[in-house]
Amino acid sequence: MIRFNCDYSEGAHPRVLEKLVQTNLEQAPGYGADVFCRQAADLIQSLCHAPQAEVHFLCGGTQTNLTVIAAMLRPYQCVIAPDTGHINVHETGAIEATGHRILSIPSADGKITAQQIDLLCAQHWQDDNPEFAPQPRLVYLSFPTEFGTLYSKQELLDIRRVCDENKLYLFIDGARLGYGIAAAGNDVTLTDLAALCDAFYIGGTKLGALLGEAVVIPNEKIQKDFRYFIKQKGAMLAKGRVLGIQFLALLEDSLYFQLGAHANEQASRIRRAFEKVGFVAAYDSPTNQQFFALPNSLIKQLEETYTFAHIKPLSHNQTLVRICTSWATRAQDVDQLIEDLTRLTEEK
Amino acid sequence: MIRFNCDYSEGAHPRVLEKLVQTNLEQAPGYGADVFCRQAADLIQSLCHAPQAEVHFLCGGTQTNLTVIAAMLRPYQCVIAPDTGHINVHETGAIEATGHRILSIPSADGKITAQQIDLLCAQHWQDDNPEFAPQPRLVYLSFPTEFGTLYSKQELLDIRRVCDENKLYLFIDGARLGYGIAAAGNDVTLTDLAALCDAFYIGGTKLGALLGEAVVIPNEKIQKDFRYFIKQKGAMLAKGRVLGIQFLALLEDSLYFQLGAHANEQASRIRRAFEKVGFVAAYDSPTNQQFFALPNSLIKQLEETYTFAHIKPLSHNQTLVRICTSWATRAQDVDQLIEDLTRLTEEK
Amino acid sequence: MIRFNCDYSEGAHPRVLEKLVQTNLEQAPGYGADVFCRQAADLIQSLCHAPQAEVHFLCGGTQTNLTVIAAMLRPYQCVIAPDTGHINVHETGAIEATGHRILSIPSADGKITAQQIDLLCAQHWQDDNPEFAPQPRLVYLSFPTEFGTLYSKQELLDIRRVCDENKLYLFIDGARLGYGIAAAGNDVTLTDLAALCDAFYIGGTKLGALLGEAVVIPNEKIQKDFRYFIKQKGAMLAKGRVLGIQFLALLEDSLYFQLGAHANEQASRIRRAFEKVGFVAAYDSPTNQQFFALPNSLIKQLEETYTFAHIKPLSHNQTLVRICTSWATRAQDVDQLIEDLTRLTEEK
Amino acid sequence: MIRFNCDYSEGAHPRVLEKLVQTNLEQAPGYGADVFCRQAADLIQSLCHAPQAEVHFLCGGTQTNLTVIAAMLRPYQCVIAPDTGHINVHETGAIEATGHRILSIPSADGKITAQQIDLLCAQHWQDDNPEFAPQPRLVYLSFPTEFGTLYSKQELLDIRRVCDENKLYLFIDGARLGYGIAAAGNDVTLTDLAALCDAFYIGGTKLGALLGEAVVIPNEKIQKDFRYFIKQKGAMLAKGRVLGIQFLALLEDSLYFQLGAHANEQASRIRRAFEKVGFVAAYDSPTNQQFFALPNSLIKQLEETYTFAHIKPLSHNQTLVRICTSWATRAQDVDQLIEDLTRLTEEK
Repeated sequence: MIRFNCDYSEGAHPRVLEKLVQTNLEQAPGYGADVFCRQAADLIQSLCHAPQAEVHFLCGGTQTNLTVIAAMLRPYQCVIAPDTGHINVHETGAIEATGHRILSIPSADGKITAQQIDLLCAQHWQDDNPEFAPQPRLVYLSFPTEFGTLYSKQELLDIRRVCDENKLYLFIDGARLGYGIAAAGNDVTLTDLAALCDAFYIGGTKLGALLGEAVVIPNEKIQKDFRYFIKQKGAMLAKGRVLGIQFLALLEDSLYFQLGAHANEQASRIRRAFEKVGFVAAYDSPTNQQFFALPNSLIKQLEETYTFAHIKPLSHNQTLVRICTSWATRAQDVDQLIEDLTRLTEEK
Repeated sequence: MIRFNCDYSEGAHPRVLEKLVQTNLEQAPGYGADVFCRQAADLIQSLCHAPQAEVHFLCGGTQTNLTVIAAMLRPYQCVIAPDTGHINVHETGAIEATGHRILSIPSADGKITAQQIDLLCAQHWQDDNPEFAPQPRLVYLSFPTEFGTLYSKQELLDIRRVCDENKLYLFIDGARLGYGIAAAGNDVTLTDLAALCDAFYIGGTKLGALLGEAVVIPNEKIQKDFRYFIKQKGAMLAKGRVLGIQFLALLEDSLYFQLGAHANEQASRIRRAFEKVGFVAAYDSPTNQQFFALPNSLIKQLEETYTFAHIKPLSHNQTLVRICTSWATRAQDVDQLIEDLTRLTEEK
Repeated sequence: MIRFNCDYSEGAHPRVLEKLVQTNLEQAPGYGADVFCRQAADLIQSLCHAPQAEVHFLCGGTQTNLTVIAAMLRPYQCVIAPDTGHINVHETGAIEATGHRILSIPSADGKITAQQIDLLCAQHWQDDNPEFAPQPRLVYLSFPTEFGTLYSKQELLDIRRVCDENKLYLFIDGARLGYGIAAAGNDVTLTDLAALCDAFYIGGTKLGALLGEAVVIPNEKIQKDFRYFIKQKGAMLAKGRVLGIQFLALLEDSLYFQLGAHANEQASRIRRAFEKVGFVAAYDSPTNQQFFALPNSLIKQLEETYTFAHIKPLSHNQTLVRICTSWATRAQDVDQLIEDLTRLTEEK
Repeated sequence: MIRFNCDYSEGAHPRVLEKLVQTNLEQAPGYGADVFCRQAADLIQSLCHAPQAEVHFLCGGTQTNLTVIAAMLRPYQCVIAPDTGHINVHETGAIEATGHRILSIPSADGKITAQQIDLLCAQHWQDDNPEFAPQPRLVYLSFPTEFGTLYSKQELLDIRRVCDENKLYLFIDGARLGYGIAAAGNDVTLTDLAALCDAFYIGGTKLGALLGEAVVIPNEKIQKDFRYFIKQKGAMLAKGRVLGIQFLALLEDSLYFQLGAHANEQASRIRRAFEKVGFVAAYDSPTNQQFFALPNSLIKQLEETYTFAHIKPLSHNQTLVRICTSWATRAQDVDQLIEDLTRLTEEK
């Protein structure tokens, strides 16, 4: 089987492994105090043009989301998120397990708007007894979203503005950040994110690392005592170096963004092939995730060779599927998929 | 500097890295459903003679402790632990953050006794209103303990008996399990632990892996829905393979226990050297951690070349230090330490 | 001003206060172990025909909801509720603060159906990785609902059936139970509730007591160690007698249900008067809460004399208001309201 | 039986009940926004000479402790308390259930010292990795303590100083405050408490009310959004008036302190009687709780007529008991106890 169901089917990019091997016997202090983490943090500060930002390395998305969100909220406060957001659909109530409600906003394509956020806050504060509902304090977004879509820089500026007007923090889940930054048409940079967000992260797990997310915290209020949170949530590795080394390998020479661009290009080829045979992409995604409503019969035929993610049944004979590329996707596998798709749809 | 301050100063044992490299481009399902995790779990079941046990792979000690303990307790129940236990002194209140009190028992050497546990339970249930205090439901031990000491099989049998009599689960933190199993004089086996515990873990992070703890759950009640806990606590890696592969490398051909034996032997050499010059080990540790009350002047001299962990000041001019070996400790570094120690103490 | 905005504008029914006065200097044990609580519990068991049920007395609705729900769920489980349910809209995230998600079901009139519950469970269990979302384990309903509506006995039987099929507990919030039981057309009895629910409560605060909710727990699994939960959540009064005495006063001679019937009758008079002048009730409520979409101009005129609860603006010149009667509502005040309403609407 | 086992064996002082009866049918807004709560709050501000202080009314001690402490701490912070403190021994882990560790300090008589607090903080901050343990942020004391003892004003000034030096909040549990303020030799006033504490409370439940604790919050940082905490923890009564009315009755004309003085006087008579027959009080308590180590044979004889609280067995034939008076203790019951005690001890 050739896996197109997700972007974490392989290990790490070879250069990441090489660096782990090269540095393996160098002794270093534990818990993220090593030279590799420090160098990686310096590099990220520099790439973000944010010398005041703190950088911490955590293991995975759910862990990062619950740790950062817990650090941003008081017990009676809640986080605003798209109803399709990862924290709302894919994390087993991890946020609620830290005591906080997720206030979800309906989203058709994974994105929400400044206006929706503003309205939600207005509703809270207009109540005679606002204290009878959790207080909105934080907006959680993903870049790219769960559906591969991207916010424009203007959309993020608008969201930042309503955040400021409503005393909200802004936290961006960048589990797939590299695919977004490298996408055709994207106008958002690391520097923009560091200027607009109170915290965001650069996802490694889904883009070339064995595991690891680099959390960037430009806001000094959130920086304070953040290591207590990391440790308490079980997110501090004794061998923190394992994460620092990988991010060094990924971010030196822009490998991370090259890998993102590669995956996007392969995804784009797949998208064009599907559109050519009549299946319009369900979302306007310039990144590595592509979604199509396909006949179950076609899915069954393709799944003799390939795996996809089944998102949801749309009818008795049609299903929304996700096709996902990654840094590791081989062009020849995409060739073969396109060829098979063309053949199978021509036969009909 | 030569680091003797902990057992996680290097990366992973070379065979662990090799296996990561060899398998790197094989595609596999995510979240622990891969063939490597399955093989590693099968191997562990087999080594434990516990075919009914579930095996899960988590990242680190604090994460494992908080996840397992949360799975074992109802909200009003508490965990009994030595006051020196890792969950009580080194985890930033991670257990309390899941809502549970740690009921600590004074311990001189890291161990507690069946009798102490029994007494604590008796006190709880004899109260007119037992519901005014958290209900004891779980005993947490470490093997080896924080001070390198070990429970004998008989001691564990006694503890299991009082656990049964008091309806308590037994959970053993095996962050350094391999050092314990391989220790001279130890009579506790993996099979014993699987028979005696409701859950325990085989620690990888501190014994040859980049990261990783293999949780073994013989008790079917704790098995139920355990993956929900792992996911909710942010402890489920997308690339679960990273953990499975490492445990395969460590447990095939008993590498894990050979590495433990190596570290113990080096620690034993250090211990003998210190005792020879008049410093009796503070605890009766047959494992890789050795503790000595040393004059600050000697510590200062040694720390020109070596790092140790400072446990606590004992007086104005004496400090309790920990000297720690690992799978990676080189015999020549121990030679040099012994030589320096001998020279420095002779000079006086 | 004459208050019709809620059902807790006065103190307690005079017979409740009398009993508090009469028993005031009798000495009794604390924490609910007194003879008054025992007698009230016995009486409730008897009224419910549920000799095996446990009865506990708590202070208010939010406290009761969070305590019972915390006792019913494991950390990774969630509670299903109408999106209009009190726990979802009026309790400051109290349920999430105990670590649990509320899985809300859209409701037009405060009620949800067996089919909706069944569908939600099916969606959870059909997922390839059900453990990526909180596990449904409990259904929370209100009787009457937030909009004064009632479930029929058949509807509750259907819900119980899907609960059994999906291994869900059923918990009914009876903050206004007496209004529901006493309502015209209602076919649900205390005995039915005790047979159908794993837990429910008989609300005192909103029906004649100073404060107090009597929790009835027919399911023995939930009974176990429930007092630990009450105490831990700060819900156990030192003078538990204060609650037992009040419920004795309310339930002896069916005072509770007579008060409910009185309030319903006054609410029904108000409803008929509004309908007579052209304002159809927004919900089919046979209980003490009536909802009307009224022109803001009329609201303003009426609010010179009366208070109502503003539920939400419907347009620039129309608002949904709640008019609420209680055990304490005086017929002459309702006469006056009807008179004023008639006059004001005739003037137009 | 005549109850001396606690100070909550009766209902409320008659003047409290009278005021509840008198005001019963006055309509008022819910949730503490009524005129009675406002008047009571104003009166308390005035008595404390703290016009900036916020006053809130909650139901009981555990509820108040968990609500205030949750409002004072971030998730990784802990509360320092005497090991004998109510939160540590009598609240079913309510504090841990909000996620926080209690860092207990050994106490012989219920009190702790400024020096002990200072030392604990020094230990935390001297660690190489302070973030591996919960961060001390709050000191919890009781006035009077669980053993009836009192802090002097100088002791509280010293504690406040180390709190300031270590960035700690100070919170005083005043469940029995009136007994303390009214005690012979006490030099601490309400005004002192309001000047020294970030929050404290005036306990009603154990001193003349049916239920109720008046929380005084001089520190504006803790005031912010405190009603969200009250509501989320289930501590906000719909009929908040029930608490406001009672505190009005208790604090008008200093009734509260007169009742405290009465109870202290009766306790003092009991103490002198016991000391006369050779039983020295176990603690130097000038308040309503007296503790004696008594022979079990004497306890058995006295318990034919009186109830005491058994604190703990001291040996096979001796037990530490608490004898407790209250606002409701009748002088003739104390006469009778003294008479019986004298007779029984003379017989020997």
